[in-house]
Amino acid sequence: MSAEIICVGTELLLGDILNGNARHLARQLADLGIPHYYQTVVGDNPARIQAAIAIAIERGAKILIFTGGLGPTPDDLTIAAIADYFKTPLSERAEIIADIEAKYRQRGRVMNPSNRKQALIPDGADVLPNPVGTAPGIIWRAADDVTILTFPGVPAEMRAMWTETAIPYLQEQGWGDRVLTSEMLKFWGISESVLAERVGDLFDSENPTVAPYANYGEVKLRVAARTEDEASGRALIAPIAAKLRQLGAPHYYGSDDATLASVVGKLLGDRSQTLAVAESCTGGGLGQSLTAVPGSSAYFWGGVIAYDNSVKANLLGVDADDLAREGAVSEVVAMQMAAGAQSRLGTDWGLGITGVAGPGGGTPDKPVGLVYVGLASPDGTAIARELRLGDTRGREWVRRVSGNSALDLLRQALLA
Amino acid sequence: MSAEIICVGTELLLGDILNGNARHLARQLADLGIPHYYQTVVGDNPARIQAAIAIAIERGAKILIFTGGLGPTPDDLTIAAIADYFKTPLSERAEIIADIEAKYRQRGRVMNPSNRKQALIPDGADVLPNPVGTAPGIIWRAADDVTILTFPGVPAEMRAMWTETAIPYLQEQGWGDRVLTSEMLKFWGISESVLAERVGDLFDSENPTVAPYANYGEVKLRVAARTEDEASGRALIAPIAAKLRQLGAPHYYGSDDATLASVVGKLLGDRSQTLAVAESCTGGGLGQSLTAVPGSSAYFWGGVIAYDNSVKANLLGVDADDLAREGAVSEVVAMQMAAGAQSRLGTDWGLGITGVAGPGGGTPDKPVGLVYVGLASPDGTAIARELRLGDTRGREWVRRVSGNSALDLLRQALLA
Repeated sequence: MSAEIICVGTELLLGDILNGNARHLARQLADLGIPHYYQTVVGDNPARIQAAIAIAIERGAKILIFTGGLGPTPDDLTIAAIADYFKTPLSERAEIIADIEAKYRQRGRVMNPSNRKQALIPDGADVLPNPVGTAPGIIWRAADDVTILTFPGVPAEMRAMWTETAIPYLQEQGWGDRVLTSEMLKFWGISESVLAERVGDLFDSENPTVAPYANYGEVKLRVAARTEDEASGRALIAPIAAKLRQLGAPHYYGSDDATLASVVGKLLGDRSQTLAVAESCTGGGLGQSLTAVPGSSAYFWGGVIAYDNSVKANLLGVDADDLAREGAVSEVVAMQMAAGAQSRLGTDWGLGITGVAGPGGGTPDKPVGLVYVGLASPDGTAIARELRLGDTRGREWVRRVSGNSALDLLRQALLA
Repeated sequence: MSAEIICVGTELLLGDILNGNARHLARQLADLGIPHYYQTVVGDNPARIQAAIAIAIERGAKILIFTGGLGPTPDDLTIAAIADYFKTPLSERAEIIADIEAKYRQRGRVMNPSNRKQALIPDGADVLPNPVGTAPGIIWRAADDVTILTFPGVPAEMRAMWTETAIPYLQEQGWGDRVLTSEMLKFWGISESVLAERVGDLFDSENPTVAPYANYGEVKLRVAARTEDEASGRALIAPIAAKLRQLGAPHYYGSDDATLASVVGKLLGDRSQTLAVAESCTGGGLGQSLTAVPGSSAYFWGGVIAYDNSVKANLLGVDADDLAREGAVSEVVAMQMAAGAQSRLGTDWGLGITGVAGPGGGTPDKPVGLVYVGLASPDGTAIARELRLGDTRGREWVRRVSGNSALDLLRQALLA
């Protein structure tokens, strides 16, 4: 009972986009315990799509999962190619037209005639509703032992449709009878190799498994168990996860959907305290990550993007002499920015970031990657941390790591 | 004369990693003008690797490009599986052993016995040197019309080997004698289906081809020509691109690496004008996208993240009565935020954004997805635009589209 993933899109063959859909679906299949041995990428070409179907069936796949090619344009051919392979006519489904029209109406527009094509579904197939966009998918038992699922290439739409409709359907069919339960533990301020040394032979554990991931300065450990039900999985994971949290303390900050911004938000909310930010090199990125958390208005009041030095002085009250003497990228300016945000917005805490994100602007004294994060506390004191992030990993890396370092500074203070 | 990419690795089937190698190789093949119609992902399993080889040859591929499975561990099986498929014995190459030993010596270590396996190469194959790591690849004319190239899965190693050895080899063989030249045209404020209708039968053009892409409210058209040299490609593309720009006016804003933020920055820089922002629901995201452009400090001075209403009043001078009467999400508040940023920071232009990003906070009167963007101009006037973005595509979608809509409002004003 294996599945195959077939991703349709000439843009994949041209290398225009990363195949994030294949990765997402692969992980989902692994989590459901549905084996999958091959993935195929093919262009927007009916004959080649059909050749890929024939090969997948020939090598024993019972579930064929397609992404891409469901849009309204002439190069969107996936559904027609599949229907033609199984010699099944397409018919227009009124409920799809109604759904697309409603989505257009909501945005104050009228459905475009080209969208009508998206309502053509093979006879006998079920509609796989798209809660986000206009392109529906299909779930179709196209032959005795071949089930077809199609998803749009737009990742957010594909993911929503997979979660809301495909998983329940697959489980109802009795597929995915073993459950993969996992916890992703997240750490900040420790390198992958140092954490790996601490974890040691826990990496050899077979059920649950422990695997490391690292990205943008963050290190993660995924603990995953395959069991008959989720409760047994949780029971297997719990002691290993507890041990890993202990080994990675105080760098462990949360699991799964937790972000540094959400963890800090929770800690602030628990204390009914508020936060303001002052950003130079991050230019708003810290505020953006804080406000990516729904409900953040309860503790995040806002801040000042002080990109130009005049803004640091005028809107945050950074001392002009200090700015001139120490430079904008300095410990004292980071602390004054944090304190300025705190006092001007009237919050309990203030965070400030100033640095050289690059690629230009570095000097021997203040090289690219030099960043100061400042924290102003409710007791009226302020501290700063110096980061030396180097010039090899690019501007966005420096900005993102700076923002997370500021959040972690506040997290440690809230836990102290 | 087509190629196929075969990526070997159980971690790909488990969804542990993104297949960035496939994307890189795909783009490289496109740039060289070597057609490629299929990609396959397969696990670390000899029988399945061999099945993938048979299928690729059967469907006419002359160049088989493998990534992954070249390491020293027992699950690294790619070379052995390939050699076995072509019934060719493996022999240890002394020069590979010498190279691996030298690399270990350089790091002050002794070669691990398990690395010896990496020196086993099919008889008749050439070594594809790895300038970075220990795993060499092979270049092998395995049959009359089948050439095999293998690369490690580590992206930096694969890329270096591709550039240093594979490209010269392929070109020496007379492959890659045609060049793919392309331009990606970018549009804002027009839907994919409306643009597609305007473009009409230009989508049927064969050289250059025209293909649409859409993401986060942006629509792109890729014009790509395959010719003997880049100059001929540019000549083929120019008239089609000009026509598309005309058909998509005034929504076309730039090509290739251009972003709305970089285009607005260029227009401001040309006029020696400056910009400040006032952000509510985007929480800093607009400032972040503006400052993602290196050198943006020349025209972007900063702004205020006015998440809490007190910040809108105190730091931006939004009228308290208007806030109470019209609500924070209103046309008048968006205009006052823009004007407040402009006057408080002393810039030529000001942008303001206020809206309901969701998922909570919507009311019948002010639903999730309702956003106002305001623009304050150097002549002292302000305007606002209402966006109704709906509640189906999530908080981040609303925030990102809001930021880009604000940038486009300024772009249109700068061009007026």
